[in-house]
Amino acid sequence: MKRNIKLTISYDGTNYSGFQIQDNASTIQEKLEKALSRIEKHPVKVIGAGRTDAGVHALGQVVNFYSISSIPTDRFLPALNSNLPFDIRIIQAEEVEENFHARFSAKGKIYCYTLDFGAVSNVFLRLYSAHIPYTINLTKIKQGVALLVGKHHYGAFCAAGATTKTFVRMIHEIKIEQNEQIVKIYFKGNGFLYNMVRIIVGTLLEVGKGRIEPETIKDILDSRDRNQAGPTAPARGLCLVKVIY
Amino acid sequence: MKRNIKLTISYDGTNYSGFQIQDNASTIQEKLEKALSRIEKHPVKVIGAGRTDAGVHALGQVVNFYSISSIPTDRFLPALNSNLPFDIRIIQAEEVEENFHARFSAKGKIYCYTLDFGAVSNVFLRLYSAHIPYTINLTKIKQGVALLVGKHHYGAFCAAGATTKTFVRMIHEIKIEQNEQIVKIYFKGNGFLYNMVRIIVGTLLEVGKGRIEPETIKDILDSRDRNQAGPTAPARGLCLVKVIY
Repeated sequence: MKRNIKLTISYDGTNYSGFQIQDNASTIQEKLEKALSRIEKHPVKVIGAGRTDAGVHALGQVVNFYSISSIPTDRFLPALNSNLPFDIRIIQAEEVEENFHARFSAKGKIYCYTLDFGAVSNVFLRLYSAHIPYTINLTKIKQGVALLVGKHHYGAFCAAGATTKTFVRMIHEIKIEQNEQIVKIYFKGNGFLYNMVRIIVGTLLEVGKGRIEPETIKDILDSRDRNQAGPTAPARGLCLVKVIY
Repeated sequence: MKRNIKLTISYDGTNYSGFQIQDNASTIQEKLEKALSRIEKHPVKVIGAGRTDAGVHALGQVVNFYSISSIPTDRFLPALNSNLPFDIRIIQAEEVEENFHARFSAKGKIYCYTLDFGAVSNVFLRLYSAHIPYTINLTKIKQGVALLVGKHHYGAFCAAGATTKTFVRMIHEIKIEQNEQIVKIYFKGNGFLYNMVRIIVGTLLEVGKGRIEPETIKDILDSRDRNQAGPTAPARGLCLVKVIY
Protein backbone atom coordinates (compact mmCIF):
# COMPACT_ATOMS: atom_id res chain seq x y z
CA MET A 1 0.00 0.00 0.00
CA LYS A 2 1.68 3.18 -1.19
CA ARG A 3 0.71 6.33 0.70
CA ASN A 4 1.54 9.91 -0.21
CA ILE A 5 2.59 11.63 3.04
CA LYS A 6 2.73 15.40 3.46
CA LEU A 7 5.07 16.74 6.15
CA THR A 8 5.07 20.28 7.52
CA ILE A 9 8.45 21.21 8.92
CA SER A 10 10.03 23.95 11.06
CA TYR A 11 13.75 24.47 11.01
CA ASP A 12 16.44 26.78 12.23
CA GLY A 13 18.54 27.16 9.08
CA THR A 14 21.58 28.60 10.88
CA ASN A 15 23.68 25.45 10.73
CA TYR A 16 22.60 24.19 7.30
CA SER A 17 23.70 24.82 3.73
CA GLY A 18 20.08 25.35 2.74
CA PHE A 19 17.18 22.99 2.10
CA GLN A 20 18.28 21.17 -1.04
CA ILE A 21 20.52 18.14 -0.83
CA GLN A 22 24.09 18.62 -2.09
CA ASP A 23 27.43 16.88 -1.81
CA ASN A 24 29.69 17.56 1.16
CA ALA A 25 27.27 19.86 2.93
CA SER A 26 24.72 19.47 5.66
CA THR A 27 21.22 20.23 4.38
CA ILE A 28 17.65 19.96 5.66
CA GLN A 29 16.66 17.58 2.84
CA GLU A 30 19.60 15.31 3.67
CA LYS A 31 18.61 15.11 7.36
CA LEU A 32 14.97 14.47 6.44
CA GLU A 33 15.75 11.76 3.90
CA LYS A 34 18.17 10.07 6.31
CA ALA A 35 15.57 10.01 9.07
CA LEU A 36 12.82 8.83 6.70
CA SER A 37 15.00 6.13 5.16
CA ARG A 38 15.80 4.84 8.65
CA ILE A 39 12.11 4.68 9.55
CA GLU A 40 10.86 3.34 6.20
CA LYS A 41 13.81 0.94 5.95
CA HIS A 42 14.36 1.81 2.30
CA PRO A 43 15.86 4.88 0.58
CA VAL A 44 13.33 7.74 0.56
CA LYS A 45 13.40 10.88 -1.57
CA VAL A 46 11.30 13.87 -0.58
CA ILE A 47 9.78 16.54 -2.80
CA GLY A 48 10.12 20.00 -1.24
CA ALA A 49 7.73 22.93 -1.80
CA GLY A 50 10.76 25.04 -2.53
CA ARG A 51 14.41 25.49 -1.70
CA THR A 52 15.50 27.77 1.07
CA ASP A 53 19.02 29.16 0.93
CA ALA A 54 21.80 28.53 3.42
CA GLY A 55 20.88 30.20 6.71
CA VAL A 56 17.20 30.74 5.82
CA HIS A 57 14.67 29.40 8.35
CA ALA A 58 11.24 27.82 8.06
CA LEU A 59 8.18 27.72 10.26
CA GLY A 60 6.11 25.75 7.76
CA GLN A 61 8.14 24.24 4.91
CA VAL A 62 6.27 21.38 3.21
CA VAL A 63 7.52 18.17 1.62
CA ASN A 64 5.83 15.01 0.44
CA PHE A 65 7.13 11.49 -0.01
CA TYR A 66 5.72 8.07 -0.87
CA SER A 67 5.67 5.62 1.99
CA ILE A 68 5.71 1.89 1.26
CA SER A 69 5.99 0.85 4.91
CA SER A 70 3.13 -0.13 7.20
CA ILE A 71 3.86 2.62 9.75
CA PRO A 72 0.59 4.22 10.89
CA THR A 73 0.40 7.77 9.53
CA ASP A 74 0.12 9.27 13.01
CA ARG A 75 3.43 7.65 14.00
CA PHE A 76 5.51 9.54 11.42
CA LEU A 77 5.60 12.73 13.49
CA PRO A 78 7.03 11.27 16.74
CA ALA A 79 9.23 8.74 14.91
CA LEU A 80 10.77 11.39 12.67
CA ASN A 81 11.26 13.92 15.45
CA SER A 82 13.13 11.37 17.52
CA ASN A 83 15.41 10.75 14.51
CA LEU A 84 16.02 14.40 13.66
CA PRO A 85 18.27 17.03 15.27
CA PHE A 86 16.46 19.54 17.53
CA ASP A 87 16.84 22.35 14.99
CA ILE A 88 14.53 20.46 12.58
CA ARG A 89 11.02 19.60 13.81
CA ILE A 90 8.14 17.93 11.98
CA ILE A 91 5.04 19.83 13.08
CA GLN A 92 2.47 17.89 11.03
CA ALA A 93 2.30 14.62 9.11
CA GLU A 94 -0.78 13.60 7.15
CA GLU A 95 -1.77 11.32 4.29
CA VAL A 96 -2.75 13.25 1.18
CA GLU A 97 -4.16 12.22 -2.20
CA GLU A 98 -1.82 10.44 -4.57
CA ASN A 99 -1.31 13.37 -6.92
CA PHE A 100 -0.44 15.94 -4.24
CA HIS A 101 2.96 17.43 -5.10
CA ALA A 102 4.60 19.71 -2.54
CA ARG A 103 5.96 22.02 -5.27
CA PHE A 104 3.47 21.82 -8.15
CA SER A 105 0.36 21.80 -5.96
CA ALA A 106 1.44 24.94 -4.07
CA LYS A 107 -0.79 27.96 -4.72
CA GLY A 108 1.39 30.40 -2.85
CA LYS A 109 3.75 31.08 0.00
CA ILE A 110 4.14 33.38 2.94
CA TYR A 111 7.61 34.57 3.89
CA CYS A 112 8.59 36.75 6.82
CA TYR A 113 11.66 38.94 6.99
CA THR A 114 12.72 40.10 10.47
CA LEU A 115 14.65 43.31 10.97
CA ASP A 116 16.21 44.50 14.22
CA PHE A 117 16.44 48.30 14.17
CA GLY A 118 17.82 48.59 17.72
CA ALA A 119 21.02 50.54 18.37
CA VAL A 120 22.12 47.29 20.04
CA SER A 121 20.93 43.99 18.58
CA ASN A 122 18.65 41.65 20.52
CA VAL A 123 20.92 38.69 21.42
CA PHE A 124 18.07 36.19 21.26
CA LEU A 125 17.12 37.21 17.72
CA ARG A 126 20.66 37.59 16.36
CA LEU A 127 20.35 34.38 14.31
CA TYR A 128 16.80 35.13 13.16
CA SER A 129 16.98 38.75 12.08
CA ALA A 130 19.13 41.25 10.22
CA HIS A 131 20.48 43.98 12.48
CA ILE A 132 20.12 47.41 10.89
CA PRO A 133 21.42 49.98 13.39
CA TYR A 134 20.55 53.00 11.25
CA THR A 135 17.81 55.58 11.36
CA ILE A 136 15.15 54.16 9.09
CA ASN A 137 12.08 55.95 7.79
CA LEU A 138 9.37 53.30 8.07
CA THR A 139 6.80 55.56 6.40
CA LYS A 140 8.92 55.65 3.26
CA ILE A 141 9.31 51.87 3.38
CA LYS A 142 5.51 51.54 3.53
CA GLN A 143 5.22 53.83 0.48
CA GLY A 144 7.69 51.62 -1.38
CA VAL A 145 5.84 48.47 -0.31
CA ALA A 146 2.60 49.75 -1.83
CA LEU A 147 4.28 49.87 -5.26
CA LEU A 148 5.53 46.28 -5.00
CA VAL A 149 2.19 44.64 -4.31
CA GLY A 150 0.33 43.24 -7.32
CA LYS A 151 1.21 41.36 -10.47
CA HIS A 152 4.59 42.47 -11.79
CA HIS A 153 7.64 41.37 -13.71
CA TYR A 154 10.08 41.03 -10.81
CA GLY A 155 13.21 40.51 -12.95
CA ALA A 156 14.94 43.38 -11.12
CA PHE A 157 14.37 41.51 -7.85
CA CYS A 158 15.77 38.16 -8.95
CA ALA A 159 19.33 36.96 -8.41
CA ALA A 160 21.36 36.75 -11.62
CA GLY A 161 21.61 33.31 -13.15
CA ALA A 162 18.18 32.14 -12.08
CA THR A 163 16.46 29.87 -14.57
CA THR A 164 12.75 30.48 -14.72
CA LYS A 165 10.19 30.50 -17.52
CA THR A 166 8.69 33.78 -16.43
CA PHE A 167 9.62 36.57 -14.04
CA VAL A 168 6.00 37.54 -13.55
CA ARG A 169 4.69 36.89 -10.06
CA MET A 170 1.78 38.13 -7.96
CA ILE A 171 2.40 39.54 -4.49
CA HIS A 172 -1.00 39.54 -2.79
CA GLU A 173 0.03 41.35 0.35
CA ILE A 174 3.00 42.84 2.17
CA LYS A 175 2.29 43.42 5.85
CA ILE A 176 4.56 45.24 8.30
CA GLU A 177 4.40 44.55 12.05
CA GLN A 178 6.45 46.52 14.56
CA ASN A 179 7.18 45.53 18.14
CA GLU A 180 9.64 47.97 19.66
CA GLN A 181 12.97 47.55 17.84
CA ILE A 182 11.82 44.51 15.85
CA VAL A 183 10.04 44.90 12.50
CA LYS A 184 8.63 41.91 10.66
CA ILE A 185 7.68 42.18 6.99
CA TYR A 186 5.34 39.44 5.74
CA PHE A 187 5.12 38.67 2.03
CA LYS A 188 2.24 36.66 0.65
CA GLY A 189 2.41 35.75 -3.01
CA ASN A 190 1.71 33.08 -5.61
CA GLY A 191 5.44 32.40 -5.92
CA PHE A 192 8.79 34.04 -5.42
CA LEU A 193 11.85 34.21 -7.65
CA TYR A 194 15.32 33.26 -6.49
CA ASN A 195 16.36 35.68 -3.67
CA MET A 196 13.32 37.84 -4.47
CA VAL A 197 12.28 38.54 -0.88
CA ARG A 198 15.82 39.28 0.22
CA ILE A 199 16.42 41.67 -2.71
CA ILE A 200 13.09 43.40 -2.06
CA VAL A 201 14.03 43.85 1.61
CA GLY A 202 17.51 45.09 0.68
CA THR A 203 15.88 47.62 -1.67
CA LEU A 204 13.28 48.69 0.92
CA LEU A 205 16.12 49.33 3.39
CA GLU A 206 17.72 51.67 0.83
CA VAL A 207 14.36 53.44 0.66
CA GLY A 208 14.19 53.60 4.47
CA LYS A 209 17.70 55.08 4.62
CA GLY A 210 16.70 57.75 2.09
CA ARG A 211 19.12 56.53 -0.60
CA ILE A 212 16.28 55.58 -2.95
CA GLU A 213 12.98 57.47 -3.16
CA PRO A 214 9.88 55.28 -2.68
CA GLU A 215 8.56 56.17 -6.16
CA THR A 216 11.79 54.84 -7.68
CA ILE A 217 10.54 51.31 -6.86
CA LYS A 218 8.31 51.62 -9.93
CA ASP A 219 11.28 52.48 -12.14
CA ILE A 220 13.26 49.57 -10.70
CA LEU A 221 10.40 47.18 -11.51
CA ASP A 222 10.15 48.60 -15.03
CA SER A 223 13.91 48.30 -15.61
CA ARG A 224 13.79 44.50 -15.07
CA ASP A 225 17.47 44.98 -14.23
CA ARG A 226 18.90 43.44 -11.06
CA ASN A 227 21.52 46.18 -10.89
CA GLN A 228 18.84 48.82 -10.34
CA ALA A 229 17.59 47.20 -7.12
CA GLY A 230 19.30 47.27 -3.72
CA PRO A 231 21.59 44.65 -2.17
CA THR A 232 20.41 41.19 -1.09
CA ALA A 233 19.45 41.28 2.62
CA PRO A 234 21.10 38.61 4.84
CA ALA A 235 19.70 35.06 4.80
CA ARG A 236 19.26 34.84 8.58
CA GLY A 237 16.38 37.38 8.58
CA LEU A 238 14.27 35.26 6.23
CA CYS A 239 11.76 32.60 7.22
CA LEU A 240 9.38 30.54 5.06
CA VAL A 241 6.23 30.84 7.17
CA LYS A 242 3.70 28.86 5.18
CA VAL A 243 3.07 27.09 1.90
CA ILE A 244 -0.50 27.61 0.70
CA TYR A 245 -2.34 24.76 -1.10
CA MET B 1 39.98 60.41 37.35
CA LYS B 2 38.40 57.19 38.54
CA ARG B 3 34.83 56.59 37.38
CA ASN B 4 32.46 53.88 38.55
CA ILE B 5 30.77 52.54 35.41
CA LYS B 6 27.58 50.49 35.46
CA LEU B 7 26.97 48.18 32.51
CA THR B 8 23.66 46.49 31.67
CA ILE B 9 24.21 43.34 29.64
CA SER B 10 22.17 40.86 27.60
CA TYR B 11 23.57 37.45 26.83
CA ASP B 12 22.66 34.13 25.34
CA GLY B 13 24.12 31.75 27.92
CA THR B 14 23.98 28.68 25.67
CA ASN B 15 27.68 28.55 24.90
CA TYR B 16 29.01 29.67 28.28
CA SER B 17 29.87 27.94 31.55
CA GLY B 18 27.88 30.58 33.42
CA PHE B 19 28.59 34.17 34.40
CA GLN B 20 31.38 33.79 36.92
CA ILE B 21 34.97 33.53 35.79
CA GLN B 22 36.63 30.12 36.22
CA ASP B 23 39.67 28.28 34.94
CA ASN B 24 39.50 26.40 31.65
CA ALA B 25 35.97 27.46 30.82
CA SER B 26 34.40 30.17 28.74
CA THR B 27 32.34 32.54 30.90
CA ILE B 28 30.53 35.85 30.47
CA GLN B 29 32.69 37.56 33.09
CA GLU B 30 35.86 36.41 31.31
CA LYS B 31 34.67 37.82 27.95
CA LEU B 32 33.64 41.10 29.60
CA GLU B 33 36.90 41.54 31.51
CA LYS B 34 38.94 40.72 28.41
CA ALA B 35 37.06 43.29 26.34
CA LEU B 36 37.26 45.91 29.11
CA SER B 37 40.97 45.30 29.72
CA ARG B 38 41.61 45.77 26.00
CA ILE B 39 39.74 49.07 25.98
CA GLU B 40 41.04 50.38 29.30
CA LYS B 41 44.57 49.12 28.55
CA HIS B 42 44.95 47.71 32.07
CA PRO B 43 43.51 44.61 33.78
CA VAL B 44 39.88 45.24 34.75
CA LYS B 45 37.78 43.24 37.21
CA VAL B 46 33.99 43.57 37.15
CA ILE B 47 31.53 43.13 40.01
CA GLY B 48 28.43 41.24 38.88
CA ALA B 49 24.95 41.63 40.37
CA GLY B 50 24.80 37.86 40.63
CA ARG B 51 26.02 34.70 39.04
CA THR B 52 24.00 32.95 36.42
CA ASP B 53 24.58 29.23 35.93
CA ALA B 54 25.87 27.55 32.80
CA GLY B 55 23.24 27.87 30.06
CA VAL B 56 21.20 30.56 31.85
CA HIS B 57 20.50 33.72 29.85
CA ALA B 58 20.22 37.41 30.70
CA LEU B 59 18.28 40.31 29.28
CA GLY B 60 19.51 42.77 31.93
CA GLN B 61 22.46 41.48 33.98
CA VAL B 62 24.33 44.33 35.68
CA VAL B 63 28.01 44.76 36.49
CA ASN B 64 30.12 47.69 37.60
CA PHE B 65 33.83 48.39 37.28
CA TYR B 66 36.21 51.26 37.95
CA SER B 67 37.57 52.98 34.89
CA ILE B 68 40.89 54.82 35.09
CA SER B 69 41.05 55.60 31.37
CA SER B 70 39.94 58.81 29.70
CA ILE B 71 37.39 57.09 27.44
CA PRO B 72 34.17 59.15 27.32
CA THR B 73 31.42 57.27 29.15
CA ASP B 74 29.20 57.18 26.06
CA ARG B 75 31.95 55.38 24.12
CA PHE B 76 31.98 52.29 26.36
CA LEU B 77 28.87 50.81 24.77
CA PRO B 78 30.04 50.81 21.12
CA ALA B 79 33.67 50.04 22.03
CA LEU B 80 32.70 47.06 24.18
CA ASN B 81 30.17 45.69 21.71
CA SER B 82 32.74 45.73 18.95
CA ASN B 83 35.08 43.75 21.22
CA LEU B 84 32.50 41.20 22.40
CA PRO B 85 31.03 38.14 20.67
CA PHE B 86 27.51 38.63 19.25
CA ASP B 87 25.93 36.50 22.00
CA ILE B 88 26.95 39.12 24.59
CA ARG B 89 25.68 42.69 24.13
CA ILE B 90 26.10 45.73 26.34
CA ILE B 91 22.73 47.49 26.26
CA GLN B 92 23.56 50.40 28.57
CA ALA B 93 26.70 52.01 30.02
CA GLU B 94 26.50 54.87 32.50
CA GLU B 95 28.60 56.52 35.17
CA VAL B 96 27.24 55.93 38.68
CA GLU B 97 28.20 57.19 42.12
CA GLU B 98 31.41 55.85 43.61
CA ASN B 99 29.74 53.57 46.15
CA PHE B 100 27.37 51.84 43.70
CA HIS B 101 28.00 48.09 43.94
CA ALA B 102 26.28 45.84 41.38
CA ARG B 103 25.63 43.14 43.99
CA PHE B 104 25.27 44.95 47.34
CA SER B 105 23.24 47.86 45.96
CA ALA B 106 20.71 45.55 44.30
CA LYS B 107 17.24 45.75 45.87
CA GLY B 108 15.79 42.88 43.88
CA LYS B 109 15.71 40.91 40.68
CA ILE B 110 13.28 39.77 38.03
CA TYR B 111 13.75 36.35 36.46
CA CYS B 112 11.71 34.77 33.70
CA TYR B 113 11.34 31.05 33.10
CA THR B 114 10.06 30.03 29.66
CA LEU B 115 8.19 26.77 29.15
CA ASP B 116 7.19 25.27 25.80
CA PHE B 117 4.12 23.07 26.30
CA GLY B 118 3.72 22.23 22.61
CA ALA B 119 3.50 18.61 21.49
CA VAL B 120 6.37 19.60 19.19
CA SER B 121 8.90 22.16 20.44
CA ASN B 122 9.30 25.56 18.80
CA VAL B 123 12.68 25.32 17.01
CA PHE B 124 13.44 29.00 17.49
CA LEU B 125 12.95 28.81 21.26
CA ARG B 126 14.67 25.46 21.79
CA LEU B 127 17.70 27.13 23.41
CA TYR B 128 15.60 29.56 25.45
CA SER B 129 12.91 27.35 26.93
CA ALA B 130 12.28 23.98 28.54
CA HIS B 131 10.13 21.73 26.40
CA ILE B 132 7.43 20.01 28.48
CA PRO B 133 5.33 17.91 26.10
CA TYR B 134 2.86 16.76 28.75
CA THR B 135 -0.66 17.73 29.64
CA ILE B 136 -0.24 20.40 32.26
CA ASN B 137 -2.95 21.86 34.48
CA LEU B 138 -2.11 25.56 34.49
CA THR B 139 -4.87 26.32 37.00
CA LYS B 140 -3.17 24.06 39.55
CA ILE B 141 0.16 25.75 38.83
CA LYS B 142 -1.45 29.12 39.54
CA GLN B 143 -2.80 27.78 42.85
CA GLY B 144 0.70 26.61 43.77
CA VAL B 145 2.20 29.96 42.76
CA ALA B 146 -0.11 31.81 45.15
CA LEU B 147 1.42 29.88 48.07
CA LEU B 148 4.98 30.76 47.04
CA VAL B 149 4.57 34.54 46.95
CA GLY B 150 5.53 36.42 50.10
CA LYS B 151 8.29 36.27 52.71
CA HIS B 152 9.30 32.66 53.32
CA HIS B 153 12.19 30.43 54.33
CA TYR B 154 12.98 28.94 50.90
CA GLY B 155 15.43 26.29 52.16
CA ALA B 156 13.46 23.57 50.36
CA PHE B 157 13.97 25.47 47.09
CA CYS B 158 17.73 25.91 47.38
CA ALA B 159 20.37 23.61 45.87
CA ALA B 160 22.28 21.60 48.48
CA GLY B 161 25.67 22.99 49.42
CA ALA B 162 24.70 26.64 49.04
CA THR B 163 26.36 28.95 51.54
CA THR B 164 24.06 31.73 52.65
CA LYS B 165 23.47 33.49 55.95
CA THR B 166 19.70 33.16 55.68
CA PHE B 167 17.27 31.24 53.53
CA VAL B 168 14.54 33.84 54.04
CA ARG B 169 13.62 35.74 50.89
CA MET B 170 10.69 37.79 49.72
CA ILE B 171 8.99 37.01 46.41
CA HIS B 172 6.94 40.09 45.57
CA GLU B 173 5.19 38.70 42.54
CA ILE B 174 4.96 35.64 40.29
CA LYS B 175 3.25 36.43 37.00
CA ILE B 176 2.26 33.89 34.35
CA GLU B 177 1.89 34.87 30.68
CA GLN B 178 0.64 32.45 28.04
CA ASN B 179 0.98 32.84 24.29
CA GLU B 180 -0.22 29.67 22.57
CA GLN B 181 2.20 26.86 23.49
CA ILE B 182 4.66 29.16 25.27
CA VAL B 183 4.24 30.01 28.96
CA LYS B 184 6.49 32.53 30.67
CA ILE B 185 6.66 32.70 34.46
CA TYR B 186 8.10 35.95 35.84
CA PHE B 187 9.51 36.03 39.38
CA LYS B 188 10.12 39.35 41.12
CA GLY B 189 11.83 39.18 44.50
CA ASN B 190 14.35 40.84 46.80
CA GLY B 191 16.80 38.01 46.16
CA PHE B 192 16.94 34.40 45.08
CA LEU B 193 18.83 31.44 46.54
CA TYR B 194 21.06 29.19 44.47
CA ASN B 195 18.88 27.42 41.85
CA MET B 196 15.76 28.73 43.60
CA VAL B 197 13.81 29.72 40.49
CA ARG B 198 14.68 26.48 38.68
CA ILE B 199 13.65 24.34 41.68
CA ILE B 200 10.40 26.31 42.06
CA VAL B 201 9.63 25.76 38.37
CA GLY B 202 10.51 22.06 38.62
CA THR B 203 8.13 21.79 41.58
CA LEU B 204 5.36 23.74 39.84
CA LEU B 205 5.63 21.36 36.89
CA GLU B 206 5.05 18.44 39.28
CA VAL B 207 1.96 20.31 40.47
CA GLY B 208 0.85 20.88 36.87
CA LYS B 209 1.28 17.18 36.08
CA GLY B 210 -0.84 16.27 39.12
CA ARG B 211 1.98 14.52 40.97
CA ILE B 212 1.94 17.09 43.78
CA GLU B 213 -1.22 18.85 45.00
CA PRO B 214 -0.99 22.67 44.98
CA GLU B 215 -1.57 22.84 48.77
CA THR B 216 1.48 20.65 49.29
CA ILE B 217 3.64 23.65 48.33
CA LYS B 218 3.01 24.96 51.85
CA ASP B 219 4.27 21.72 53.41
CA ILE B 220 7.33 21.78 51.16
CA LEU B 221 8.14 25.34 52.29
CA ASP B 222 7.64 24.32 55.94
CA SER B 223 9.88 21.25 55.57
CA ARG B 224 12.87 23.42 54.58
CA ASP B 225 14.06 20.18 52.97
CA ARG B 226 15.34 20.23 49.37
CA ASN B 227 14.26 16.59 48.97
CA GLN B 228 10.60 17.53 49.41
CA ALA B 229 10.61 19.85 46.38
CA GLY B 230 10.60 18.84 42.71
CA PRO B 231 13.55 18.51 40.34
CA THR B 232 15.61 21.45 39.12
CA ALA B 233 14.21 22.70 35.80
CA PRO B 234 16.73 23.01 32.92
CA ALA B 235 19.04 26.04 32.82
CA ARG B 236 18.11 27.04 29.25
CA GLY B 237 14.59 28.12 30.27
CA LEU B 238 15.88 30.70 32.75
CA CYS B 239 16.64 34.34 32.03
CA LEU B 240 17.71 37.14 34.38
CA VAL B 241 15.43 39.90 33.13
CA LYS B 242 16.32 42.81 35.38
CA VAL B 243 18.28 43.83 38.46
CA ILE B 244 16.39 46.39 40.52
CA TYR B 245 18.31 49.21 42.30
